[in-house]
Amino acid sequence: MRVLITGGGGFIGRKLTQALLRDDRMPVERITLFDVVPAEGLPPDPRIEPATGDIADRGALDDAAADADLIWHLAAVVSAGAEADFDLGYRVNVDGTRRLLEALRATGRRPRVVFASGFAVFGGDLPDAITDDFHPTPQTSYGTQKAIGELLVADYSRKGYVDGRSLRLPTIVVRPGKPNRAASTFASSIIREPLTGQEAICPVGRDTAIYILSPRRVVDGLLRAMSLPEAAWGMNRTLPLPGITVTVGDMVDTLERVAGRAVTDRIRWQPDPVIQRIVASWPARAEARRAREMGFTDDGSFDTILAAHIEDELGGIVPAAQ
Amino acid sequence: MRVLITGGGGFIGRKLTQALLRDDRMPVERITLFDVVPAEGLPPDPRIEPATGDIADRGALDDAAADADLIWHLAAVVSAGAEADFDLGYRVNVDGTRRLLEALRATGRRPRVVFASGFAVFGGDLPDAITDDFHPTPQTSYGTQKAIGELLVADYSRKGYVDGRSLRLPTIVVRPGKPNRAASTFASSIIREPLTGQEAICPVGRDTAIYILSPRRVVDGLLRAMSLPEAAWGMNRTLPLPGITVTVGDMVDTLERVAGRAVTDRIRWQPDPVIQRIVASWPARAEARRAREMGFTDDGSFDTILAAHIEDELGGIVPAAQ
Repeated sequence: MRVLITGGGGFIGRKLTQALLRDDRMPVERITLFDVVPAEGLPPDPRIEPATGDIADRGALDDAAADADLIWHLAAVVSAGAEADFDLGYRVNVDGTRRLLEALRATGRRPRVVFASGFAVFGGDLPDAITDDFHPTPQTSYGTQKAIGELLVADYSRKGYVDGRSLRLPTIVVRPGKPNRAASTFASSIIREPLTGQEAICPVGRDTAIYILSPRRVVDGLLRAMSLPEAAWGMNRTLPLPGITVTVGDMVDTLERVAGRAVTDRIRWQPDPVIQRIVASWPARAEARRAREMGFTDDGSFDTILAAHIEDELGGIVPAAQ
Repeated sequence: MRVLITGGGGFIGRKLTQALLRDDRMPVERITLFDVVPAEGLPPDPRIEPATGDIADRGALDDAAADADLIWHLAAVVSAGAEADFDLGYRVNVDGTRRLLEALRATGRRPRVVFASGFAVFGGDLPDAITDDFHPTPQTSYGTQKAIGELLVADYSRKGYVDGRSLRLPTIVVRPGKPNRAASTFASSIIREPLTGQEAICPVGRDTAIYILSPRRVVDGLLRAMSLPEAAWGMNRTLPLPGITVTVGDMVDTLERVAGRAVTDRIRWQPDPVIQRIVASWPARAEARRAREMGFTDDGSFDTILAAHIEDELGGIVPAAQ
């Protein structure tokens, strides 16, 4: 199998790559990691092929797409970035997605593609819990662009140009690495930075509820979405994934229980109205019934998410507070 | 007020133009009718300005958009057309809509725009009646493109580039003129053609239920959507309109009651699986609660729709069967 991962230099792309290389059941010949910059921090492996370029440039993806069997489309300008630069967001998130689908259509081989969408497609007047058939009325350009991507993936699939599947991902917590321009980046920072002795700013209040999924479960979900037979998707190629609902206060309390007060004292509470508005526009709860029936799972609790982060990113060791 | 109507050469564009010119409450300085061909059949009026061009061409709309205050965006490749020519549908229905919104954004004047979307955004697994918050999972490229248009109109509005409103229109019956490439064109043909002594083909069965609205009510709806204050739309710029649910058999029975058996004998029943599949993918019923609260109305019965057609298009006279 030849794999293409757009946004392959990002942390999910890299974790997915490592999972694919480890998985003996799936004979991977090659994994092309397409991104604006080369992927770093991966173990050397002859099957990894970096490819750099701008996904929205005509022809940029053609080589990488020409013989790919399985494509994970993760590349995106993230939420606060797309809100700050309207044109860039449309160029990458809409035009880039269409260019990818056109490149895959041009192969005539009907490759299978998993598109990373998100709960940011929702916004406005929301019910207590999002049902699987609730309409997206996004209140960010990022959410709009993801909703458009879902529609494109579904239509290209219906026409038989690709075999596409879109996952609406909850907010991913705890992201490793550095903060990014996602409005939700604080949700990882307030855990990750204090654990390594750094301060983190929390721009929302303790009672802000968010709907989250761990990197482990996201990678599992991306793999499951790829492996399910086409018949499992029926006439709806877009799937809201299960997550758990936690408040920021719950997360910090859990961190304090595990790592101590000296660690959580590194969180500085600095309200930011722009971030608060974006985060408040996203749903905090979803039923995700169909996804659960299809075998997708959540983390169960934030304790599990925190433990997985400490295991995967800190070698299982909770650093002593300095 | 300076008005721009894209697709202004179509029958809705022309009816809307006539309504605007008649309406003394709205001081119209100019109505630019943008279309691929010049509008025909309008009474001469110095305020009408034809403009021809391809909406998807860069710059084609710039002049027409430069000083427009009110824009009705009706231009589209219709359903069967967009299904038959995938690239053309995306070019006109998606790229054209984006070009229009970009041209309006470039004015810096935040003009008000009403976008004609439709119930074709729905498809797949549908409830008995579509609720206002039911998700669009279109099963045609046309429906996909309209759903993308709605998302664009909403996001450009949220960003303050335009003041946009999208109406999900039921199938418009009885359309005057000739059949077009809409999969729903038969729903008008089976009434219109027999009334003027011509045969019409019905590609679907008598028990096919459709959700319809008359040209009169559509024009009323387009005017109402433009006149409502921005605050009426809240965080959702997309509105499913009320219609009535009728079966094709009901429509033909009504026609027979009004015009006689010799007229309905001109209908030839020739099943067409492609048309049947497209029509069956659309919802036959919707609640449209929010639109009713906002003052939008349906026709009440097919009798009313038929009577309006005879009055508006046949001078009120039911032709004797030849």
